Amino acid sequence: MDNRVALTACLIEAQALRFTPGGVSALSVLLEHESRQQEAGQERQVRAVVKAVAFGEVAERLARLPVGSVLTLQGFLATPRNGKHPVVHIQEYQHD
Amino acid sequence: MDNRVALTACLIEAQALRFTPGGVSALSVLLEHESRQQEAGQERQVRAVVKAVAFGEVAERLARLPVGSVLTLQGFLATPRNGKHPVVHIQEYQHD
Repeated sequence: MDNRVALTACLIEAQALRFTPGGVSALSVLLEHESRQQEAGQERQVRAVVKAVAFGEVAERLARLPVGSVLTLQGFLATPRNGKHPVVHIQEYQHD
Repeated sequence: MDNRVALTACLIEAQALRFTPGGVSALSVLLEHESRQQEAGQERQVRAVVKAVAFGEVAERLARLPVGSVLTLQGFLATPRNGKHPVVHIQEYQHD
């Protein structure tokens, strides 16, 4: 069952590092992506503003990245239990 | 600039096929995905309910798929001009 996201985006917002009830570090961020993509045989400009979350060591590393940084992430989509819209879960990232 | 989504999901809702002002076929659907994913060193159950859209020939093909079908899609994330939350744009899909 595929559930993979690969995204290069700018870190535009980062909340404070927090801890889950189980004591795992967690970080919620907002990312902005712009690129050109192929769709229905045409190239079009694409913009995506994406809510993302990271946990554990990835969250701790990401928390040290300044706003404005560009990163390429690998992750998956998940809808929070108490939410309606899917969020990107960052499993790993590279800081460009 | 990466912007790739790969997702296996069940088609749970499909609006009527429509046409963009430019006369291109367009279809909005709702997809539901469930799987187990690795995060912060642990395996966890993941559920995602995802708004998706397709255009052109892909939209026309997808419109013939019955609700309840399982498909694996390749696409990208984009935030609609008049919207807040990113939608998955389906560039291609395979019907399982």
